[in-house]
Amino acid sequence: MQRSIATVSLSGTLPEKLEAIAAAGFDGVEIFENDLLYYDGSPREVRQMCADLGIAITLFQPFRDFEGCRRDRLARNLERAERKFDLMQELGTDLVLVCSNASADCVGDERILLDDLGLLAEHAGRRGLRIGYEALAWGKHVNTWQQVWDLVRQVDHPSLGVLLDSFHTLSLKGDPSAIAEIPGDKIFFVQMADAPILAMDVLEWSRHFRCFPGQGEFDLAGFLGPIIKSGYTGPLSLEIFNDGFRAAPTRANAADGLRSLLYLEEKTRERLKQEAPAQPVEILFDTPPASEYDGIEFLEFAVDESLGAKLTHWLERLGFVKAGQHRSKSVSLLRQGDINLILNCEPYSFAHNFFEAHGPSLCATAIRVKDSAKALERAVAYKGQPYRGLVGPNELELAAVRAPDGSLIYLVDQSEGGLYDTDFNLQPGVSSSGGLLRIDHMAMALPADSLDSWVLFYKSLLDFEADDEVVLPDPYGLVKSRALRSRCSSIRLPLNISENRNTAISHALSSYRGSGVHHIAFDCADIFAEVRRAKEAGVPLLDIPLNYYDDLAARFDFDDEFLSELAYYNVLYDRDAQGGELFHVYTEPFEGRFFFEIIQRKNGYAGYGAANVAVRLAAMAKSRSGAVRQARL
Amino acid sequence: MQRSIATVSLSGTLPEKLEAIAAAGFDGVEIFENDLLYYDGSPREVRQMCADLGIAITLFQPFRDFEGCRRDRLARNLERAERKFDLMQELGTDLVLVCSNASADCVGDERILLDDLGLLAEHAGRRGLRIGYEALAWGKHVNTWQQVWDLVRQVDHPSLGVLLDSFHTLSLKGDPSAIAEIPGDKIFFVQMADAPILAMDVLEWSRHFRCFPGQGEFDLAGFLGPIIKSGYTGPLSLEIFNDGFRAAPTRANAADGLRSLLYLEEKTRERLKQEAPAQPVEILFDTPPASEYDGIEFLEFAVDESLGAKLTHWLERLGFVKAGQHRSKSVSLLRQGDINLILNCEPYSFAHNFFEAHGPSLCATAIRVKDSAKALERAVAYKGQPYRGLVGPNELELAAVRAPDGSLIYLVDQSEGGLYDTDFNLQPGVSSSGGLLRIDHMAMALPADSLDSWVLFYKSLLDFEADDEVVLPDPYGLVKSRALRSRCSSIRLPLNISENRNTAISHALSSYRGSGVHHIAFDCADIFAEVRRAKEAGVPLLDIPLNYYDDLAARFDFDDEFLSELAYYNVLYDRDAQGGELFHVYTEPFEGRFFFEIIQRKNGYAGYGAANVAVRLAAMAKSRSGAVRQARL
Repeated sequence: MQRSIATVSLSGTLPEKLEAIAAAGFDGVEIFENDLLYYDGSPREVRQMCADLGIAITLFQPFRDFEGCRRDRLARNLERAERKFDLMQELGTDLVLVCSNASADCVGDERILLDDLGLLAEHAGRRGLRIGYEALAWGKHVNTWQQVWDLVRQVDHPSLGVLLDSFHTLSLKGDPSAIAEIPGDKIFFVQMADAPILAMDVLEWSRHFRCFPGQGEFDLAGFLGPIIKSGYTGPLSLEIFNDGFRAAPTRANAADGLRSLLYLEEKTRERLKQEAPAQPVEILFDTPPASEYDGIEFLEFAVDESLGAKLTHWLERLGFVKAGQHRSKSVSLLRQGDINLILNCEPYSFAHNFFEAHGPSLCATAIRVKDSAKALERAVAYKGQPYRGLVGPNELELAAVRAPDGSLIYLVDQSEGGLYDTDFNLQPGVSSSGGLLRIDHMAMALPADSLDSWVLFYKSLLDFEADDEVVLPDPYGLVKSRALRSRCSSIRLPLNISENRNTAISHALSSYRGSGVHHIAFDCADIFAEVRRAKEAGVPLLDIPLNYYDDLAARFDFDDEFLSELAYYNVLYDRDAQGGELFHVYTEPFEGRFFFEIIQRKNGYAGYGAANVAVRLAAMAKSRSGAVRQARL
Repeated sequence: MQRSIATVSLSGTLPEKLEAIAAAGFDGVEIFENDLLYYDGSPREVRQMCADLGIAITLFQPFRDFEGCRRDRLARNLERAERKFDLMQELGTDLVLVCSNASADCVGDERILLDDLGLLAEHAGRRGLRIGYEALAWGKHVNTWQQVWDLVRQVDHPSLGVLLDSFHTLSLKGDPSAIAEIPGDKIFFVQMADAPILAMDVLEWSRHFRCFPGQGEFDLAGFLGPIIKSGYTGPLSLEIFNDGFRAAPTRANAADGLRSLLYLEEKTRERLKQEAPAQPVEILFDTPPASEYDGIEFLEFAVDESLGAKLTHWLERLGFVKAGQHRSKSVSLLRQGDINLILNCEPYSFAHNFFEAHGPSLCATAIRVKDSAKALERAVAYKGQPYRGLVGPNELELAAVRAPDGSLIYLVDQSEGGLYDTDFNLQPGVSSSGGLLRIDHMAMALPADSLDSWVLFYKSLLDFEADDEVVLPDPYGLVKSRALRSRCSSIRLPLNISENRNTAISHALSSYRGSGVHHIAFDCADIFAEVRRAKEAGVPLLDIPLNYYDDLAARFDFDDEFLSELAYYNVLYDRDAQGGELFHVYTEPFEGRFFFEIIQRKNGYAGYGAANVAVRLAAMAKSRSGAVRQARL
C-alpha cells in the first residue's frame, strides 16, 4: 500500500517533518494546514521540497464546518473553500479532507447537507480536485461512517468520496464490518490511529491520546480488513494527535510510524487469511511469521575485570557456579538450573563499548527461537538493525538485532547443539547445588517518553504481546509499568517508566545513562529454601518493614509462625483473584545498578507482584538514602 | 478550625511528610495506611514522632469493603478490623475512615448494611474508638452523603458518624446544602479536595487529578458553608490524590496546602456573611479583604551597566524616554503614557542579587493598591514573605512581598504622591511622543509543576482570579497557559508552562535559570501608528509567515490592501465570538530573554490572542534556530 503520515503526527518545523517522513520510508504525506500556515515558504516551495524528497502530498487537511452551516454564511464559506483550493493547486495535491460540521449552530437537515456537499463537490470538480468527507466522532449531526457513506452515495458526484479514520469509528464503538460493501473507489482516503481505551470526553481523547497502530488497544486489523475487502487501493495514512509525539525526536518517531503501519498490515493479512481466505492480500506487507520461543538461552553482562570478579562473587552467593571460560576471550560462563549468565570483560568488544557507555549492565539477551534465520529476516523486514560482531576462528556466529537502547538480542536456534562447547572451555562435572531454575522475567527502566516505541519494537519484530499498563507509587512519584511477553509467556519483560526525577526508575536511568535492565527475577520451586541459602551465603536482602507483615496478618488467615517466617526472610506475598500465589524476595542492588529477585509462583499466578511494588520501592528509597548517608560519612 | 492533611497528599517517606506538615503549621495529620506499612518504625514510634512535632493524628485511613460484604467473609472482615483497631490504639488515634463498599460482589440490602455498620460501631465503641463512614463516589450501593447520613442516623450508635469528602459529592454534582441539617456532632470528620472539571471516569479523576482548594473548579465554599451551619467544629483536612503532588517538593507543597485551607475558610466566611449573616463564623480564618487595584505602577528590571544601556536603547526605540535618574543609586526611570519602567544596575542591591542569579530580568512589579498596609497585612496572614530592602535617607519605603520565584511585588498606595520625586531627579518637561498607553499584561514562564502553586499564591494573597487553562502548540511540544487577573482586570498575568524540553517556554526557563517574565504587552490606541514608528526606529519585529495572511484572507472578509498592511507590519489578528477584535505585534527578544508586544483591543476583546500563539511560537522557534546558526558562524 502507499504509506503516508500527517505532518501533525510529528514534532518540529515543516522541513524537519518532511525530511523525517522521507527518511523513514513513507511514500506520502498529509499536509496539516497549520504546519503550512506557520512555515515561511510558499506552498510551491513545499511542493518542490516534497518532490525533491520523493514523497507525494496525499492530502491537504482539514477543511471544517462547511456542510449545514448557517445559510447566511454559505457564500462566505464557499469563498473560503475556493481560497483553499487555490492553495491545494499550488501544493499540487487534488484531495482535501472535509470533516463533518461540529459547530453548535449547524443544521442537520439531510436535504441541506446533500445540497452543500454537492455544491462543494461541484466547485472542487471544476478544478479537478476531490473532497474526502469524514465523520468526526463529535460531529454535531454527522458522526458515523455510515452517515457519511449515505450522503456520499446520494450526492453521487465523482469528486466526492468517503474518508475513513479508525479513531472516529472505534472510539464510539462503531462497527466497521459493512465498510466492505462500499465500492473501493468511493473510499478516497484512509487514516489510521490507535489509542488506549480511556473513559473520557472523545474530543480530548482524540486530540491528546492517539498513538500509532499497535501501541493502543483498538482492533485496527478489524477496521482495515473491511477496507481491503472493499477493494480500496489508496493510501494508508497515520493521523496521530499525541502530546508526547509533539515533543518526540522527529526521525525516530517517524520510523516508529512506518513500523506501525507494517505491523498493522501484517495483523490485517493474518486476520483476512483466517476470515476471508479468498480475499487477495498482496497489497499488504508480508514477512515470515514470528518464531516460537522457548525462554532465554543466556544473558550477557558488560563488566570490567574488577566488576566481573565482584559480580561473579555475588552470583556465586546466589548459587551460581562458574561453568566455563571462553577459549580466547576474557568471558566467563556461570550456570544454575536452566540459567546461563555470561560475564564479558573482553576489551575491544561490543560488551566493552557498552560498558564504557553504560557501566556494569546487561548488554545482550539471547532468546531461543525455532528458526534463527527466519527470525532475523523478520526483524530486518521490520527495519530492525542486524548486528554482526567480531567472530574469532572456531567461534559460533549468532544472529542478532539491536534493541532500541543499543543492547543486543541474540536469536539462538533451539536445536543448536554445542552452543557453549564451541566458544568455551567447559568445566566438566561442575553443577550448582542451588535451586534457581530459570529466568522468570527481566525488568527494564526506560525514559518516560520511549515506552510506546519499545512496545512497538517488541510487538512487531518479535510478535510479543503487551499487558495493560499499571501505575505504581514510589515514595517520590509514580511509576508506570507495562509488561511484554512472548505469546508462550516463556519470555517476560516488564518495562518501567517514571516522569518524576527522584523515583527508583529515574535513579536507575541516570546511573545507566540510558535505559537498561534494572532487575532480573529467577524462578524457583521452594522460596524458603532458596532464601535461606542466599541469606546464609551473605546475599544482602532488601529489608521489608514489619508493618507490612502486620497488614498481611489482617488481610490473610496466616498463622503466626508462617508470618514470622515470611518476615524473617523478607519474603513478600501476593494472591490473585483465582487463588494463584506469589512469593518473592529482593536483593539489594549490585553496585547501585541492578538487583535480583527470587520468585516462586503457585497455582498459575501470572503477574509480577504489583501489590508489593510500592513497599519494595519505599524500601529501596530508604536503602538508597542510607547508601548516600554512608557514602557521605 | 483544626487544620489537617492526609499523608497521601505529599511526596516522600513518612518522617519527611510529618516534618513538612508540622513545619507548614498544620494542627493534625491523617495517617494513610500505606505510608505506615512502608515505614520501618512501629506505630508507637510514629505516635511519638507526631507528638514531638506537635501534630495530632486526626484519623487513620482507609478501611475498605466492610459493610455489605459477602456473608461468608464477615467474620474474617471483622477480624481484619480488630487488627486495625490494635494499630490505631498504638498510633493513638480514635477515628478510622470506613469508605463505602466498592467491591463488585457486595450487597446493598439496607438491613444488612445497618447490621454491619452497627456491628462495626459496637466493636469500635468497646475500645473507645470511632468510625467515620464515607460515601465513595464509585461505591457500589452507597455513593452519596445522604445515604451515609440516613444509615448513620438509623444505626444511631455513638461510635458511628458521618465522614464528608467534598470530592465525592461535587464530582457527582451532588447538592451539599442539606448537610446543614445534620447535627454537627454526628459529622466526625471533613475532608476537602478541589479538582479541575474533567469529563472522565470518576475513580481515575479522583485518584490522579485532585488538587488543593482554590486550584481547581469546585465550589468548595458552597460545600463547607453547610458544614459550618451544622455546628461541626472538628478538623478540616486535605486529602489530595495528585500525580504531581506525589513528586513535588514536600515542604513547599505542604505550605501550599495550609494556604489553601486558609483561602477556603476566607471564601466560606464571605459566602456565609452574605447568605446567612446570623451564622457565627469566628471558627474560620479572618484577614483584611483584598485591596482594590488600579493597574501596574512600575516594573523594575535587574540589569548591569552594559545591559542597562542596551535595554534603554531598546526601550527608547519603542518610544520610551528617560524621565529621571535616582538621586543616589545607579537606577533610572523610563516613561511612556502611563507606563513606568525602572532599570536597576545598583551594585549590592536586591536587583543586583537577582541579576546575578537570573541575568537580565524583571525583578519587581509594583501594583497600585488602595491601602498598602492592609494589603501587606493580608499577604503576611497568608504566609507571604514580606521584604524590607535597604532604604537610603530621604528614600521612599514601599511595602513588598516576595513572589514564589523570589522577585518582589511592591504594594503602592494609589494616593501616594511624589512616588518618583522622592527618589529620583526627574527631568522636567520630558515626555514621550510614543503612543504606548499602559501595561496590558505580562506573561511568565514557570516550571511545569509549579503552576498550581503560583495560582494559589495570587488567589490567596492578592485575591486574583484565574481563567481557564488553554493548551497551545509550540513546534516542539505543548504549552499550557492560565491567566491570572485582578478582579477589576487592571492587572493581568498569563502563566505559561511546558513539559517539553525544546519549547519557547522551556528555553525561557533555562535562560532565566528559573521562572520569569518572558514578555510584556503594551496597550495602544492605534496599532499601525505604533508599529510604523517602532519599525522606523529599528525595533526588530518578529517576522510572521505570509501563509498566515493567506489564511486570514480565507477566514475573514478583508480587502487586499488591509491584508497587505497587516502582513507588511507583521500584525496578527483575532476576533472573538462577540465581535471583539485584537491586533498585536511582537518584537524579537531582548538578549534572548524577554520580548515586547504591542497590542490594541477593540470592542471589548478580553483574551490574549491564543489563536495566534502557535504562529508566534513557530516564528520564535525559527528565529531561535536562526540565532543559533548565526552564533555558530
